[in-house]
Amino acid sequence: MEDYPSKLLAKAVEQLSTLPGIGRRTALRLALHLLRQEKEDVSTLGNAIINLRKDINYCSECYNISDLELCDICSSPKRNSNYICVVEDIRDVMAIENTAQFKGKYHVLGGIISPMDGIGPSDLRINELVERVKKGEVEEVILALSTTMEGDTTNYYIYKQLKELDVKVSTLAQGISSGDELEFADELTLGRSLLNRIPYESTFAK
Amino acid sequence: MEDYPSKLLAKAVEQLSTLPGIGRRTALRLALHLLRQEKEDVSTLGNAIINLRKDINYCSECYNISDLELCDICSSPKRNSNYICVVEDIRDVMAIENTAQFKGKYHVLGGIISPMDGIGPSDLRINELVERVKKGEVEEVILALSTTMEGDTTNYYIYKQLKELDVKVSTLAQGISSGDELEFADELTLGRSLLNRIPYESTFAK
Repeated sequence: MEDYPSKLLAKAVEQLSTLPGIGRRTALRLALHLLRQEKEDVSTLGNAIINLRKDINYCSECYNISDLELCDICSSPKRNSNYICVVEDIRDVMAIENTAQFKGKYHVLGGIISPMDGIGPSDLRINELVERVKKGEVEEVILALSTTMEGDTTNYYIYKQLKELDVKVSTLAQGISSGDELEFADELTLGRSLLNRIPYESTFAK
Repeated sequence: MEDYPSKLLAKAVEQLSTLPGIGRRTALRLALHLLRQEKEDVSTLGNAIINLRKDINYCSECYNISDLELCDICSSPKRNSNYICVVEDIRDVMAIENTAQFKGKYHVLGGIISPMDGIGPSDLRINELVERVKKGEVEEVILALSTTMEGDTTNYYIYKQLKELDVKVSTLAQGISSGDELEFADELTLGRSLLNRIPYESTFAK
């Protein structure tokens, strides 16, 4: 371990290097950067971090991050409550909102099942999803998780919880990305896009 | 700009992305990581950042970061006050200490002259260096700045301040390649370049 000449500095480096993707060298660089900033600016940064965790609120319906009891999407009369799109976190909500293709509501799990990271079903908002569906308004649950082993596991777990209920469960189409060269697509993706081929007419813009 | 569903989150992302090398996407990833941690742990991180800047102390002799009035090196009877090694920041002190080749003391400038970043000679501890030399104990000042344009400029500026005084001014041997950052040099190269330091005048182009 490196020997820092100041406990304050050692503490800051140790703390900054707990952040994902930040090693001790980068942490020291960040700490020296902070020392060159104004005292007030550094306090603003520190307090923004503390307050984020202390005062954060989650939408009581979809569990997305929200300053209000209900998030903007859940409280909007323009969104269709019959469709629920299940995602891992807020970044996925933002990505799907950017497509402007989805007019239903969301359900934010807060992660995916990952035994390696010690995350099991009870750490996620899966029971809350089942409760939402049991209320009867939901017609279709769209699983929009990452197409990884963990995503597949989580999809299957949720599917098992929902299959006794009167609700359609769908998942995102897998295939080649727009603009992809066919020869560079991986075999699994290419194979699936072939198996799940769709009528050509359905790709016409309406 | 992206549209965050929470002012707290937007504020945290905005603040985290003021850090060097951290863009908005990484800042959002860090913010979501923080939300998954314990409240106390996040407070510890935030306070470590705030306290670092608020309570930091610099050695009154060499201006290295130090919890005490005098740093461990300046207060050590084993270190030779006749030799002063001038460096940019604490990372360079740590790098040179790791070579175990230097038994003198340091002078930490707190940066290098860089008009692009608005850093001039008066922002650095150059006057303080001149005052230390004027006290008469110093026989040799070893300039150990990065071998970049900014480092060269700073070397020359310091040399001009010191050349009327009765002190030898040397610089690290060119074992380090031009354009290298000091902190990334390997210990052997850095140690050798310190042992083989040469009179500053001999580095002038003829």
